[in-house]
Amino acid sequence: MDAKLLVGGTIVSSTGKVRADVLIENGKVAAVGMLDAATPDAVERVDCDGKYVMPGGIDVHTHIDSPLMGTTTADDFVSGTIAAATGGTTTIVDFGQQLAGKNLLESADAHHKKAQGKSVIDYGFHMCVTDLYENFDSHMAELTQDGISSFKVFMAYRGSLMINDGELFDILKGVGSSGAKLCVHAENGDVIDRIAADLYAQGKTGPGTHEIARPPASEVEAVSRAIKISRMAEVPLYFVHLSTQGAVEEVAAAQMTGWPISAETCTHYLSLSRDIYDQPGFEPAKAVLTPPLRTQEHQDALWRGINTGALSVVSSDHCPFCFEEKQRMGADDFRQIPNGGPGVEHRMLVMYETGVAEGKMTIEKFVEVTAENPAKQFDMYPKKGTIAPGSDADIIVVDPNGTTLISADTQKQNMDYTLFEGFKIRCSIDQVFSRGDLISVKGDYVGASGRGEFIKR
Amino acid sequence: MDAKLLVGGTIVSSTGKVRADVLIENGKVAAVGMLDAATPDAVERVDCDGKYVMPGGIDVHTHIDSPLMGTTTADDFVSGTIAAATGGTTTIVDFGQQLAGKNLLESADAHHKKAQGKSVIDYGFHMCVTDLYENFDSHMAELTQDGISSFKVFMAYRGSLMINDGELFDILKGVGSSGAKLCVHAENGDVIDRIAADLYAQGKTGPGTHEIARPPASEVEAVSRAIKISRMAEVPLYFVHLSTQGAVEEVAAAQMTGWPISAETCTHYLSLSRDIYDQPGFEPAKAVLTPPLRTQEHQDALWRGINTGALSVVSSDHCPFCFEEKQRMGADDFRQIPNGGPGVEHRMLVMYETGVAEGKMTIEKFVEVTAENPAKQFDMYPKKGTIAPGSDADIIVVDPNGTTLISADTQKQNMDYTLFEGFKIRCSIDQVFSRGDLISVKGDYVGASGRGEFIKR
Amino acid sequence: MDAKLLVGGTIVSSTGKVRADVLIENGKVAAVGMLDAATPDAVERVDCDGKYVMPGGIDVHTHIDSPLMGTTTADDFVSGTIAAATGGTTTIVDFGQQLAGKNLLESADAHHKKAQGKSVIDYGFHMCVTDLYENFDSHMAELTQDGISSFKVFMAYRGSLMINDGELFDILKGVGSSGAKLCVHAENGDVIDRIAADLYAQGKTGPGTHEIARPPASEVEAVSRAIKISRMAEVPLYFVHLSTQGAVEEVAAAQMTGWPISAETCTHYLSLSRDIYDQPGFEPAKAVLTPPLRTQEHQDALWRGINTGALSVVSSDHCPFCFEEKQRMGADDFRQIPNGGPGVEHRMLVMYETGVAEGKMTIEKFVEVTAENPAKQFDMYPKKGTIAPGSDADIIVVDPNGTTLISADTQKQNMDYTLFEGFKIRCSIDQVFSRGDLISVKGDYVGASGRGEFIKR
Amino acid sequence: MDAKLLVGGTIVSSTGKVRADVLIENGKVAAVGMLDAATPDAVERVDCDGKYVMPGGIDVHTHIDSPLMGTTTADDFVSGTIAAATGGTTTIVDFGQQLAGKNLLESADAHHKKAQGKSVIDYGFHMCVTDLYENFDSHMAELTQDGISSFKVFMAYRGSLMINDGELFDILKGVGSSGAKLCVHAENGDVIDRIAADLYAQGKTGPGTHEIARPPASEVEAVSRAIKISRMAEVPLYFVHLSTQGAVEEVAAAQMTGWPISAETCTHYLSLSRDIYDQPGFEPAKAVLTPPLRTQEHQDALWRGINTGALSVVSSDHCPFCFEEKQRMGADDFRQIPNGGPGVEHRMLVMYETGVAEGKMTIEKFVEVTAENPAKQFDMYPKKGTIAPGSDADIIVVDPNGTTLISADTQKQNMDYTLFEGFKIRCSIDQVFSRGDLISVKGDYVGASGRGEFIKR
Repeated sequence: MDAKLLVGGTIVSSTGKVRADVLIENGKVAAVGMLDAATPDAVERVDCDGKYVMPGGIDVHTHIDSPLMGTTTADDFVSGTIAAATGGTTTIVDFGQQLAGKNLLESADAHHKKAQGKSVIDYGFHMCVTDLYENFDSHMAELTQDGISSFKVFMAYRGSLMINDGELFDILKGVGSSGAKLCVHAENGDVIDRIAADLYAQGKTGPGTHEIARPPASEVEAVSRAIKISRMAEVPLYFVHLSTQGAVEEVAAAQMTGWPISAETCTHYLSLSRDIYDQPGFEPAKAVLTPPLRTQEHQDALWRGINTGALSVVSSDHCPFCFEEKQRMGADDFRQIPNGGPGVEHRMLVMYETGVAEGKMTIEKFVEVTAENPAKQFDMYPKKGTIAPGSDADIIVVDPNGTTLISADTQKQNMDYTLFEGFKIRCSIDQVFSRGDLISVKGDYVGASGRGEFIKR
Repeated sequence: MDAKLLVGGTIVSSTGKVRADVLIENGKVAAVGMLDAATPDAVERVDCDGKYVMPGGIDVHTHIDSPLMGTTTADDFVSGTIAAATGGTTTIVDFGQQLAGKNLLESADAHHKKAQGKSVIDYGFHMCVTDLYENFDSHMAELTQDGISSFKVFMAYRGSLMINDGELFDILKGVGSSGAKLCVHAENGDVIDRIAADLYAQGKTGPGTHEIARPPASEVEAVSRAIKISRMAEVPLYFVHLSTQGAVEEVAAAQMTGWPISAETCTHYLSLSRDIYDQPGFEPAKAVLTPPLRTQEHQDALWRGINTGALSVVSSDHCPFCFEEKQRMGADDFRQIPNGGPGVEHRMLVMYETGVAEGKMTIEKFVEVTAENPAKQFDMYPKKGTIAPGSDADIIVVDPNGTTLISADTQKQNMDYTLFEGFKIRCSIDQVFSRGDLISVKGDYVGASGRGEFIKR
Repeated sequence: MDAKLLVGGTIVSSTGKVRADVLIENGKVAAVGMLDAATPDAVERVDCDGKYVMPGGIDVHTHIDSPLMGTTTADDFVSGTIAAATGGTTTIVDFGQQLAGKNLLESADAHHKKAQGKSVIDYGFHMCVTDLYENFDSHMAELTQDGISSFKVFMAYRGSLMINDGELFDILKGVGSSGAKLCVHAENGDVIDRIAADLYAQGKTGPGTHEIARPPASEVEAVSRAIKISRMAEVPLYFVHLSTQGAVEEVAAAQMTGWPISAETCTHYLSLSRDIYDQPGFEPAKAVLTPPLRTQEHQDALWRGINTGALSVVSSDHCPFCFEEKQRMGADDFRQIPNGGPGVEHRMLVMYETGVAEGKMTIEKFVEVTAENPAKQFDMYPKKGTIAPGSDADIIVVDPNGTTLISADTQKQNMDYTLFEGFKIRCSIDQVFSRGDLISVKGDYVGASGRGEFIKR
Repeated sequence: MDAKLLVGGTIVSSTGKVRADVLIENGKVAAVGMLDAATPDAVERVDCDGKYVMPGGIDVHTHIDSPLMGTTTADDFVSGTIAAATGGTTTIVDFGQQLAGKNLLESADAHHKKAQGKSVIDYGFHMCVTDLYENFDSHMAELTQDGISSFKVFMAYRGSLMINDGELFDILKGVGSSGAKLCVHAENGDVIDRIAADLYAQGKTGPGTHEIARPPASEVEAVSRAIKISRMAEVPLYFVHLSTQGAVEEVAAAQMTGWPISAETCTHYLSLSRDIYDQPGFEPAKAVLTPPLRTQEHQDALWRGINTGALSVVSSDHCPFCFEEKQRMGADDFRQIPNGGPGVEHRMLVMYETGVAEGKMTIEKFVEVTAENPAKQFDMYPKKGTIAPGSDADIIVVDPNGTTLISADTQKQNMDYTLFEGFKIRCSIDQVFSRGDLISVKGDYVGASGRGEFIKR
C-alpha cells in the first residue's frame, strides 16, 4: 500500500481552517483528523507544521498548443503542465479549438493527441465551437458523453471565431439538451472592430491602442446580451474572463433573480494595472490580451464580485504568445498582435499575494476560487477541488512564511516574459502532490513525465 | 388677405387649456386671444364653442407606397394622406426605403417622385439605411442638407433589412457628424429567426405563432444593446414602436443618467389586446406586425412611459398590407406574412378614446404625444405641432360631445380591414385645417388634390 | 380700459419661444400674436424688441417673518416681497409656521395678518404642521377650502418641528382626504442629531461642521422612507429642497413606476460649491442652511434631475438670518446657528446665469422650473405661470444683453450678506409687471405699497 | 477514553457530501475518513449506513422563558431545549430581554439564571437593548467580553421595545467598538400602529387583521432605513426574520456593493401560507407573529434569497404563546394578541421536508443555513456547525427513508398547537449527539438533565 501522512498542517477549505493530519492511500485521501498516533510508523510522514494544506489549484481556462490568430500558443502540454504543476496547479481544463474544416469530434481527437502522454497533471477539455454545421449538436452530445461536457463560443473576432446571436441561441439549446455547459467570451466584436479600425485610421497603430479599442461597454453589452439570449433559450451559461464593473453587475443582477449563470475573472484583472498601456515602445503588447486590463475602479468591482460570490472562479486564461512573436506579427498594427499572455504558472502565487497577503480575500476564499469552485463548475467535484475522504490526493503544501520571486528568467513556461515580473510573493509552495505523487518541490518539477490523465467530466 | 377666426374654442397645448380665439392669416397663426371684438367682420368666422382646438396630428412613422417583404404597402400618397387628413393628421414623416442596388440619394429621389403632387398634407421623409456602401455617410450628410434629417436602421430581418452592430456604430457616427437623427427598429432578428424556425419545425405554422416567435425579451435585448452602442458611439438615437415594459425601463434608465435618447410607441400597443393571436383561422394575421401586440402588463407599462415622459411620441406605424395579401403570401408559413397593419387614419381618434376618454392621459398629453413632441423630435417645431403666432395653421377642431364609429367599410385607407373595427370614439373631428385651408369636414376630405408640400427638416 | 401692448419680444414658455406681441387688458393677458397693427394707438406700448418676455417668477418656498430656531427670519412681507419683485418674482407661496400652543387655523390667521397690506406681490401660504392635535385634519380640510391647499412637515429637528413616521402617515391621510398637497422636509433628524453631538463632543464646534453632520445619506434615507410611507398611505407628496444624487434617484425611480410624487431643488444647490465650509472663521455660517451645500457630483445629478424632469421646481428656500445673528446665536456651537439663508431676490438671476447663460438648461426649461411648474404644482396655473389669454399679466421683460451684478450692498433683502456676492449675471430684468402693473424697472421697485393679493389655491 | 465511531454514513457539509466514518473522542470529532479498519474494536460503533450524518442544528433566534407583550413565553429552558434536542437542534442562541428598570448586565444575569442547570443543549445569548441609559455601551462591551457578543434592537413596538433612529445609530456605534454584532427587527412600528389603529377603528378587530396591519412595505421600509443608518454608522448589522421580497432585494443590493450585512428568514415564511389569516374564528391567531406570513410571491423570493446567499440563516423565531393565552389576551383586539409562535422543535424537520424533499434546496444548503452559517454568523464556528477534526461532536444522524409526523399531540414544546400540524416529513432524526453524548433517539430525549453549557462567543 502506497500511503503518506501529511502531519500537523492547517487544512483549508472554503468553509474554514482546521489543524489536522491527512492520510493518503492509493492516490486518494483516506482520512482527515488526529491520525498521527493511530497511523503505523511505516507510513511516510510529511511534516506540515505551520503550513497550509490545500487542494491543488484547478485552472479551467488555458489554451495550450492551440492555433489562434494565425499562430500557435507557445506552450505544449509538456511545458505548460510542468509550469502549472510547479506553480501549484494540479488540474487544467484546456480549450480545444474547432479546426478549420474539421468537425467537433475530429477537433477533439486532435486535441487529445496533443495532450496524451505529455501532460504531467490531470486535464480535461472544453471544445470551442466556431463553425456550425449540420448536426453539430449531436456531436456536442457525443462529446459530452465522452467526458468533454463543456463548450465555448466567442462573441468577438468576426471572420475567425465569432458566432452570431442566432448561433449562440442554437448552441445554448445544444448544450441544454446535452447536459453540458457553455463558456462565453463576451465582447461585442463588431463594435470593437469598428472602433479599432477608426483608431488605426487615425494613426493610432501601436499596442497601447488595444485597450481603447475595447472599452468597458463593449464587454458589458455582450454580457447583457448573452444573459438575455440565455434566458430566451432557457439554458444558463458561464462567462469567461470578466473584466468590468458593469459585467459583474449584470451577472449579479441575473443571479439575484434566480437565473443560475456563473462567471470567472482572471489573475491579471485582479492584480495588474492598465498603466502598462501607457508605457513606451512595444512594451504594452505584453498586455495585449482580451479583454484588456482595466482601471482600479473595475478591479475593485471584481474583488467585490469575488467576495460576494457573483464571480466564482479565478482562472489564468493562459494563452501564451512570446513578446518576440507579438512584435513579429503586430509591429505596425496593434490589431495583428496575437491576443493573450501567460499565466498558468503564477495564478496561485499571485492570487495568494494579491488576495490573501494583501487582505483582499481570506485563505478560505482563495481555496474556493482557485480550486473548489472550478471543480464544481466543471463537474470534477469532489474528485478534485477538496481534501476529503475519497477525493484524489491533489494537494499543495504552502508555507506562509516562505517567499517566492516571480521572474521570466526562472519560469517554466515557454515564454520570454511574464506580466508578473518582479512580484514578491509572501509564501512558497513547498510540495505539490498529484493523486498522492509528489511532483513538485519548492518550484522544481520532480514527478514522472507524461503522468497526467484525461478527466471525463 | 386670406384670414379666418376660430372663435371661442378651447385651445390645447401640452402645458394647458385656454379658452381663446385663433386668428389665421396667410396659412399661419397670426394671434391667439380675445380677438373676436377686434377682428373685422369680413374675416371668416368658425364657431368653435365647446370644441377643442388643437394642433393637427403629426404621424412620424408611416410606410406609404413602400416595397417591403416582397410586396408593396397598400396605400399610395393619395389614399394614405387623405386617410391621414380625415383622421386629423396634417403631417406625416414617411419612411423611404433604400432600394435594391440603389444608393441613398437615388432612393430618396424615387420616394420624392412617389409623393410629389400626390400628398394632400405636408410631409417629410426619413430614409432607411439597409445596405452600406463606400461613402454612404457623405450621402447621409447631403440628404440632411436637403431636409431629410433622419434615418432608420433595422436590427431584425437578416437578409433584407438587418444591419449588424458594427454597421449600427458606423451609421450612428454618420448621423452624429451630419446632425441628423437615427431611428432604430430594435428587435434581435437572429434570435427571432431561430425561434421562428424552431416553431415552424414543430408544425406551428399559423399566423398566431408570430407572437411567440418574438418574445418581449427579443425587443428588450435589442433596445439594451442599441443604447450601449449609442453610448459607445457618443450619438443618441430614437427608438421606434416600443412595445414592452423592459424596453421602456431601459430607455427610462438611460434618460435618467442624462443620455438623451427618445422613443415612441404606437396606437395599437396602447389600445389593443394580444388576444387576437388566439383567434381561429387566419384572423391573427391582421395583427402580424412587428413587434407583436403584448399582454396587459406591457400595455400598462407603456402608458406609464407616456405619462412619465420616457416615451415621447405615439405614431401609427402605418404599414398597410391587405388581409387578402397576407393570406396569399403567408397561408402556410407565418414567416411569409408581410409584417404590418394600417393605422394612419385612426391614430388620433383611437388615442383620444383610449387615452383621453378612458382617463389614461390628459388632453394636454394627447396633444403632446400626437403633435407637439413628434414635431420637436423631428425638427419641425414650432412650424408644426403648436398653435402659436407664426406657426403653420395646421389645426383640428374636435367636438368632445361628438361620436365616431370606426369601420373598414367607411375608412379612407386602401385596406380591407382595420384593427380598430367597431371602436366607438367619444369625439368627432369636425374640421381639419392645413396651412389655413379647410381640408376635411367630419371625416370627409374637402381639400384640393396634391396640395401637400415637402417639409425640409 | 387699462391696456398695454408688449411689442416685439420673444415670448418664452416651457414648450418654446415665439416672437409675438402681448396685449394686456385689465391686468390680464388678452391676446398674443401679431397685434401691433390691429391695436389702437392709444394703448400704451412697451418695446420688447430683443428681449425675452416671460412669466414672472414664482417662488414656492419662502419663510417670511417666521419664528424659527429661537429667532425670527429677517425679512417681513414688505422687504421680502420688494426684494422678490425687483428680482423678477411676482408670486410667492410662503410657509406659515404652526405657532406654539396654537392650532392650524389660529396660526394661519396670524400669518395672514403679517402679510396683508404689506406684500407688494400676490402670495399664497403653505402651513407647517408640527404639533398634531385632536381633529387637526378637519382644520387642514378647512384651510384647504380657504385656499391654503398645501402643508408641510419636517422629518428633522426633534423637539421643535419634527414629526414621527406615524404622524407623517396621519398627515398624508389628512391631505389625501382634503385634496391638498404635502411638502416634506426630508432629513433623518435623529441620526443627524447623533452625528452632530458626536462631532461637537470631539471639539468640532465651528460652523463648517454643519455639513459633515448632515451627510448625503441622511437626506437619501428620509426621502426613501417618505416615499414608502406615502405609498402605504396611498397619498403622494412633494419634496422640498432636495440636494443629493441619491434623493433624485429615489424620486425618479418612484416616478418611473407611476407613483406621482414631485420635488424641488433650490438655487444654491444648483449654483454654489460646498467649499465655503472649508473657509476660515465664521464665514461657513453663511451657508448653514439645510440640507447643506454638496459636492459637484451631487450638483451634476441635480441638473440631470432638472433636465429629465425628476425635479420640477427650483425654489429659493428664502429663510434669511443675518450673519450677525448667526454669530450671536451659534458662535460656540454650530448646532445653535439658525439654519437658513436669503435667496428670494436672486433666484431668477442666478438661475438665468448658472442655467441658461452657462448652457445647463434652455431658456424654456428656465421658465418651466421657475414659473410654470411652481404654478402647476400649487394649483395656480394658468392664472399664474404662463403668458396666455386670460392669465394674470405677471410678466418680466429680460434683456439677454444686459448685465447685473449681485451684491449685499445693493440688495433689497433685509440682510447683511448674500451667498451670491459678486455673481455677474449676463442679463438684466428690465421690467416687471404684476397683474399688468409695472412694479419694477431695472431692479428698482416702482409699484404701490401693499398691493399684493392673497391667492386662494 | 470516551470514543465512538459513526460508520458508513454520508457526511454533509455546505460544500458537499462524502461517504466516510466519523471518529468521536472526548466529545469532539477526532477524525473523518475510512477509519473502520484502523479503529480498535473496543470503540462503540454506530451504524450510519444509508443515513446522513450532519452537524446538529443551530437555532439562533429563540425566546425562552421571556417576558414579552405583558406575558411570558410558554417554554422554559427545560421544555424548550428538550424540544430543540429531539428536533435535531443541538445549540440555541436565545434572546435575553432587557428587564424593566434593569441594566444590561443585570438583565443578562437574570437570563443566565433561567438557563443554567436547565438547558440540555449548549446555548448562547443575545441581549435585547430596549432602554438606553448612561454608559449602556460600556455594558455592551463588558457583555461582549463575557461571551454575549450580539445584541438586538426593535424598530417596532413603540412604548415597549422600539428604539428610534438616533438610538439605533448609537447602538451600532456601540457594537462596532465592542466587536459585537447587532440583530435588527425591522418593521416600521409607528406606521404599523397607525394602520392598525385605523383598522381597529373600522371594526376590524379579529386576529386575521394582524396581517393587513403589517403590509410588506412596512418591513421593506425599515430594512432600507436600517441599511442606510448602518452605512452612516459604518457598522454592519444582521436582520432577523425577513419575510418579503423587497427586504431580500434591499439586502442583496447592499451586499452587492460590498457592504457586509447579513440576514435570516424563518421556517414559517419558507413553508406556510398566509391563507391561515382567512380562516374563521380565532384560528388566525396561531399565526399572529411578526412579521406575518406572506403571499407565495414573497415565499418564492425568500427561497431565491436562500439559494443566492442573500439570506444566510434559517431560524425558528421560537416565541411560544399558547393559543389559549392568545385568546385570553386578544379576543377583542388583535393588537393585544401576544406576537409569536413555536418553532424550535420542528425547524430542522420542516426545512428538510419543504427544502430538501421538495427540491427547493440541496442537502448541502440545508446544512449551511441550519447549522454552518448560524455558527459562523455568531462566532461559534468551527466549534459548532461542522463535522471536522477538533469540532464539538454535535451531530445528527438522519434517515432519508424514515418519516416523521408533526403533531401538537406528540410535541415536546410546552404548547397547545403547532403551525406545522399534520406535516409529514420524509425523514427521521434517528440519533442526536451533543458533545459526543447521545441525547435523543428517534424523537425521544435520552440525555441527562441540565447538561447544556453556556457558549462564550
